[in-house]
Amino acid sequence: MKTTLLNTLLYLIIASPIWTQNDAEAAMIRSIYDEVLLNGSCYDWLSELSTDIGGRLAGSPEAEEAVRYTAQKLKPISDNVTLQECKVPYWVRGAKEKVYIKGMPEDALIALNALALGNSVGTGAAGIEAPVIEVHSLDEVKELGKEVIDGKIVFFNRPMDPTLINTFRAYGRAGDQRVNGPAVAAEFGAIGVAVRSLTTLTDDVPHTGVTRYKEGVQKIPAVALSTKASDQLSDLIKRYGVSLYIETHSQMVDPAKLSHNVIAEIKGSEYPDEIIVIGGHLDSWDVGGGAHDDGAGCVHAMEVLRTLKAINYQPKRTIRCVLFMNEENGLGGGLAYAEESNKKNEFHIAAIESDAGGFTPRQFSFDATDEVFSNYFRQIYEWLPLLEPYGITFTKGGSGADINPLKSQNGILIGLRPDSQRYFDYHHTANDIIDAVNERELKLGAAAMTSLVYLIDNKGLSK
Amino acid sequence: MKTTLLNTLLYLIIASPIWTQNDAEAAMIRSIYDEVLLNGSCYDWLSELSTDIGGRLAGSPEAEEAVRYTAQKLKPISDNVTLQECKVPYWVRGAKEKVYIKGMPEDALIALNALALGNSVGTGAAGIEAPVIEVHSLDEVKELGKEVIDGKIVFFNRPMDPTLINTFRAYGRAGDQRVNGPAVAAEFGAIGVAVRSLTTLTDDVPHTGVTRYKEGVQKIPAVALSTKASDQLSDLIKRYGVSLYIETHSQMVDPAKLSHNVIAEIKGSEYPDEIIVIGGHLDSWDVGGGAHDDGAGCVHAMEVLRTLKAINYQPKRTIRCVLFMNEENGLGGGLAYAEESNKKNEFHIAAIESDAGGFTPRQFSFDATDEVFSNYFRQIYEWLPLLEPYGITFTKGGSGADINPLKSQNGILIGLRPDSQRYFDYHHTANDIIDAVNERELKLGAAAMTSLVYLIDNKGLSK
Repeated sequence: MKTTLLNTLLYLIIASPIWTQNDAEAAMIRSIYDEVLLNGSCYDWLSELSTDIGGRLAGSPEAEEAVRYTAQKLKPISDNVTLQECKVPYWVRGAKEKVYIKGMPEDALIALNALALGNSVGTGAAGIEAPVIEVHSLDEVKELGKEVIDGKIVFFNRPMDPTLINTFRAYGRAGDQRVNGPAVAAEFGAIGVAVRSLTTLTDDVPHTGVTRYKEGVQKIPAVALSTKASDQLSDLIKRYGVSLYIETHSQMVDPAKLSHNVIAEIKGSEYPDEIIVIGGHLDSWDVGGGAHDDGAGCVHAMEVLRTLKAINYQPKRTIRCVLFMNEENGLGGGLAYAEESNKKNEFHIAAIESDAGGFTPRQFSFDATDEVFSNYFRQIYEWLPLLEPYGITFTKGGSGADINPLKSQNGILIGLRPDSQRYFDYHHTANDIIDAVNERELKLGAAAMTSLVYLIDNKGLSK
Repeated sequence: MKTTLLNTLLYLIIASPIWTQNDAEAAMIRSIYDEVLLNGSCYDWLSELSTDIGGRLAGSPEAEEAVRYTAQKLKPISDNVTLQECKVPYWVRGAKEKVYIKGMPEDALIALNALALGNSVGTGAAGIEAPVIEVHSLDEVKELGKEVIDGKIVFFNRPMDPTLINTFRAYGRAGDQRVNGPAVAAEFGAIGVAVRSLTTLTDDVPHTGVTRYKEGVQKIPAVALSTKASDQLSDLIKRYGVSLYIETHSQMVDPAKLSHNVIAEIKGSEYPDEIIVIGGHLDSWDVGGGAHDDGAGCVHAMEVLRTLKAINYQPKRTIRCVLFMNEENGLGGGLAYAEESNKKNEFHIAAIESDAGGFTPRQFSFDATDEVFSNYFRQIYEWLPLLEPYGITFTKGGSGADINPLKSQNGILIGLRPDSQRYFDYHHTANDIIDAVNERELKLGAAAMTSLVYLIDNKGLSK
């Protein structure tokens, strides 16, 4: 039985004392973890970023304040800090959303907790009101067609699949309703859209997030309803065939406002042209404090520089911390960064993004063009025993939205993958605040990133 | 270079498509996870156990209520439920502790948050007051000797080591101060003890826990101080050489009160004499709700039975859920269970305890007598690919205090190891309540346990 033989072989290899680590590298990684766990600044930075500054929607004054704040913090721990221009849409939510179920017996009116979707047009003070059609997919809208959809409010109510262990996968499978639902529903004449919040929790907290309109199709108002509100609406639709009243005051203030990525680097001593990026995105949604999404990723990346300085490690390659602007609403920062980098003929040997929360780190996920992947990943895989004692495993998979445009440079792209179970309890909500972040868990993420940066820098990757 | 060769081999094996799983077993494990994630009762049970019943100190009315409650819930999901007698010490905290720093300039009085240690004698209304000596180990008390210690209050202030990734290891290294500190200090004439709370957090929440007096040595009052209070006391000792006033009203009401383990089993259809135990401990400390410690372990074990029934799995071996009484304060239940089991010449092929919280499960830890370990672990290790997709790894290590006495039966003992980062934020405190438990994380622990029980039951372990 082949499987058993291979398993036994694997067992013997893992149990074998030959499975040792490079002691000097192990000691360096131990000193990285000690430095972060004992003296790390990331939690304090995150507290200031998410509480004192707060939600940092691209284009907002808070986002600009976050640029200034992080640039200032990065100065003493890098060789130079630059602000890189990028264009972002500046959208504002405006006055609090009002959503009511109407058309009930005895004219009962039920208020639902809702948030306008990012980018969505507002209804204005007059609001909109129409019968609601519940659907569970974009295809269902197309099947129902204009005859049914025209003049209605479409309610997308497909939940995230709770049986998927990785909650990001469940998010990915349900997200099309929010991102494309309003555009698709509008094509068939809908006048508004309500979407079930993307979370595995059943609670009364709505989750916002981006929606994308389609060129040439009417832009219709769109809100996310809390999961409890969604269940209630679904129930009442079945019982009474109700209507929905939606009033939102959101608007696109400036579709191309000037904003900035924050870039801080430590120049490499031997191979300065081989760049290792670490990054997160500085913008967040306007509700909450953007603590897990993605303040955590920003302070993870900042902590890498601080830690390398603190332990007096002089990198051979250029280590560059990039805090990207506008991941949430168009990727303006990530695209601008890659464009300028390509113009300068830069080579990113590796880029690591942390954009999956500040929970206990569990994996790094590696991605590259086909020709690069197997070569680089095989070399990196040999380092696994150095990180396994810290609870880290390696896997093939996506990296991060902001660094993805760098893929064509034929380096390796890497995503930090913390435990995902609680992430969508907070994601894009008013609850994504510092209290939802555990200091040790956050620090362990920063230490894992620093360790991987150290390994890539110290060992290099041969083509 | 041997390491590199082996690493490459390991990489090839893992990347190989031959590394496949038994499809039927994979499907069964998938159905276990689906059942628990979609229909699991463990979170609701834990809510009732930790909130409606609350803290369940051995010997207390709440502990007896927990026996009744869990027995009732286990009836419909097992063949039979029995209550097994055991003897437990019934200790009560009595009126709220008062601890003050005294001997300050201008007679300033500083109140410190404290909890009497479990088993400790009270001071009574008169309290005790004496100069404080700060130490960092039991050895330091011995070195200082009777000359310095006599008539004083000894303050053990060695913190948990924050650089250890597994917080249980840090707990293990700091715990002797609480468990044995009062007995050792008393040998040198101390009249009372204060201990730094065992947590990696710096906050104002004291953590209780057991202390053990020594036969023939004076029993002296002992309290745990919050870590903030400990830092403050340490600072003021250095500056002023202060005294401490301690007033506690705890007492041992009955050193050998009758209590019960709750045992529910599903009889095996083919090998009923091979017993697989799953368990946690039903008692907790009196403060808080014993949600993570160890209500989570109890409902994990209960969920195993519920899930096997729900998916209509008829076990070949006898699956026995044991909710042990009095792990916290003497192990009365665990010892009684092993004693009776040995008398009946039972054989526990495996015992799995969950007593490390309700966080995301990460590992199973395996333990056995030397002659048994390598044989059983080699067989079990072959199942790892079936659990890896659920984020589970296997390691050698301890199992659980309650099942440890079964080791002489030469089966395998197993501990469920959830993520440990947050555990000591709540452990033995008023904050160990249902709100600290995440439903998905709790359910994943139950699903992991059920899956391992299924594999042991279905495949067996050959001697």
